[in-house]
Amino acid sequence: MQTVTVPLGERSYDVRIGKGILSRTGQHAAALGGARAAAVITDDQVAPLYLQTVTGSLQAAGLQTFSRVLPHGEQTKSLSSLSSLYAFLAESGIQRSDLIIALGGGVIGDLAGFAAATWLRGIRLIQLPTSLLAQVDSSVGGKVAVDMPFGKNMVGAFHQPSLVLCDPTVLDTLPETFWRDGLGEVVKYGCIMDEPLFSLLEEQAASGRPGIMQVMDTVLSSCIQDKADVVARDEHDTGLRMILNFGHTLGHAIETCQHYEGLTHGCAVAVGMQIITELSEARSLTEPGTAARLRRLLEQLSLPHTLPPIQESLLLQAMQMDKKNLNASLHLVILERIGTSHLLHSDPGFFAGMTQAS
Amino acid sequence: MQTVTVPLGERSYDVRIGKGILSRTGQHAAALGGARAAAVITDDQVAPLYLQTVTGSLQAAGLQTFSRVLPHGEQTKSLSSLSSLYAFLAESGIQRSDLIIALGGGVIGDLAGFAAATWLRGIRLIQLPTSLLAQVDSSVGGKVAVDMPFGKNMVGAFHQPSLVLCDPTVLDTLPETFWRDGLGEVVKYGCIMDEPLFSLLEEQAASGRPGIMQVMDTVLSSCIQDKADVVARDEHDTGLRMILNFGHTLGHAIETCQHYEGLTHGCAVAVGMQIITELSEARSLTEPGTAARLRRLLEQLSLPHTLPPIQESLLLQAMQMDKKNLNASLHLVILERIGTSHLLHSDPGFFAGMTQAS
Repeated sequence: MQTVTVPLGERSYDVRIGKGILSRTGQHAAALGGARAAAVITDDQVAPLYLQTVTGSLQAAGLQTFSRVLPHGEQTKSLSSLSSLYAFLAESGIQRSDLIIALGGGVIGDLAGFAAATWLRGIRLIQLPTSLLAQVDSSVGGKVAVDMPFGKNMVGAFHQPSLVLCDPTVLDTLPETFWRDGLGEVVKYGCIMDEPLFSLLEEQAASGRPGIMQVMDTVLSSCIQDKADVVARDEHDTGLRMILNFGHTLGHAIETCQHYEGLTHGCAVAVGMQIITELSEARSLTEPGTAARLRRLLEQLSLPHTLPPIQESLLLQAMQMDKKNLNASLHLVILERIGTSHLLHSDPGFFAGMTQAS
Repeated sequence: MQTVTVPLGERSYDVRIGKGILSRTGQHAAALGGARAAAVITDDQVAPLYLQTVTGSLQAAGLQTFSRVLPHGEQTKSLSSLSSLYAFLAESGIQRSDLIIALGGGVIGDLAGFAAATWLRGIRLIQLPTSLLAQVDSSVGGKVAVDMPFGKNMVGAFHQPSLVLCDPTVLDTLPETFWRDGLGEVVKYGCIMDEPLFSLLEEQAASGRPGIMQVMDTVLSSCIQDKADVVARDEHDTGLRMILNFGHTLGHAIETCQHYEGLTHGCAVAVGMQIITELSEARSLTEPGTAARLRRLLEQLSLPHTLPPIQESLLLQAMQMDKKNLNASLHLVILERIGTSHLLHSDPGFFAGMTQAS
């Protein structure tokens, strides 16, 4: 087992990474102390695979368990699901000293996390991320939210978990789409701050998914350590944390133009990272050869790196909207080279001509 | 103008108290810096009296204003009102650097405060409390919440305001019921930690409401300083802050048994304070004469101090439910004498025989 500590003073917590750790959820949860019961929140794709393992382990550790299985998919991340979760927590008698456990991907983590942030003004949360994307990104850092009809993640909180357990074996059952979705964010950490991780991916990529899985413990702990470093320096996302948005400005625009039914988040981010790096390299903001190196890795990992057929004007408009859409920053993340990045105060005009460039 | 600072590190803020300060909201808000717009949330009783004063002042200070007037009353503190507020904030284009301003009593403060705690994962909040209860209690300390069908304040957050402006002149228009509602909590501060405040009330009480109004600046600043001292030592209500619940265990039970249509909160608390002090004095936990002194002051202030006709078994049952109702502590607050109190780990059985005693 490897442990990464997210150092946030009295809100510090451990991310523990280890094969089979899900089946030891109970002992890790009980070690937090003070809880009588745990409310496990999951979805209908994850429940058949892991719910019994988790609740069994919790019960063996002396915790009373309650569980709620929600439909899978982004539409579950709504205020109405949240309202039904509150009713579930009331029925289950979940008290201030008890635990909420999010067993699933990013949707479950964000929704159950927001419930934990607000139930009785905030109770403890354990994240059990079951997708690669959730393991390397959303389960760490405390961002929780629900979507609103007028925008994603518009309502939420910063609520750090008390513990995150990352079990690499759950990735064996992860469908290929979700695998690639997560890989996009893994490559991102290599790009913005972790050249050794990028090199490791280059070495293993030729052997495909099994090649990456061979070094998954290292991949997970590297990504999580990177994220912990950033979050520790900017918990509330007012500065440095924006570098985690590398590739996201264009990525979000692609997702919006495809009405979230085209490229997955991680794949849209992969395209976003490649295009912005080509543009920044063309403007001498990035070391020559960086875009080519990135493209080679994305290709080897079967991640997309060229724009899907969308009119440039629509993409620019989506970025403009996103900017006005309250939640977005005016900063672009630019690579100096693989492993080193900085923020550039800019605007969507930076992307003009991108459909010709790529 | 008097200023009480609530010292909470990076979450510290000022409570400014002064006659007519509402009409200077704009300059105080602008001094916080960084905001482009302010969303003012109020109710249909307060809006005709003060909304224009507040928005006019904000506009004069260069802030764009948006306002939403909600129906008055506890039923507004719901998840569905919250959802409509989110839509209002989206339509108004309220961004992370903007302000939410709660203009009203406890219901508006709690609801608008929870919206501020969660909109875009939290934006700045200014409290403009217009009831005595909100001025001395709910606007300070960061507790925000909505009610659920199965319980009051079940969903919420700790979200400290960035500024609180307390204008004593608004109390001139306060209906008598709300005046007494607030006085109950004022007396509470005297009882638990502020003998000089208690004495001041005793001196002024004979002259009725005008007598108290003469010293209202001192009364407000004393109560707010008391609350600030407690909140600074226990922001998240895990210990000392429970002393603010003096009189509340029985008070809540009375409110519940009367379905929130009998005594107001402050009056129910007044009865609760009196009864528990009689019981604790009878058990030699409290200095002899304390209950009589408290009863004299409550009488002079026209606050109730005897139980309304409710069966004791129903009151005990309500306390038991409250205890099981997840949100309540197992602690009773006991006066050693006027101005000094402590927590006693106990249970509703403490109150057995209270209907005979009073």
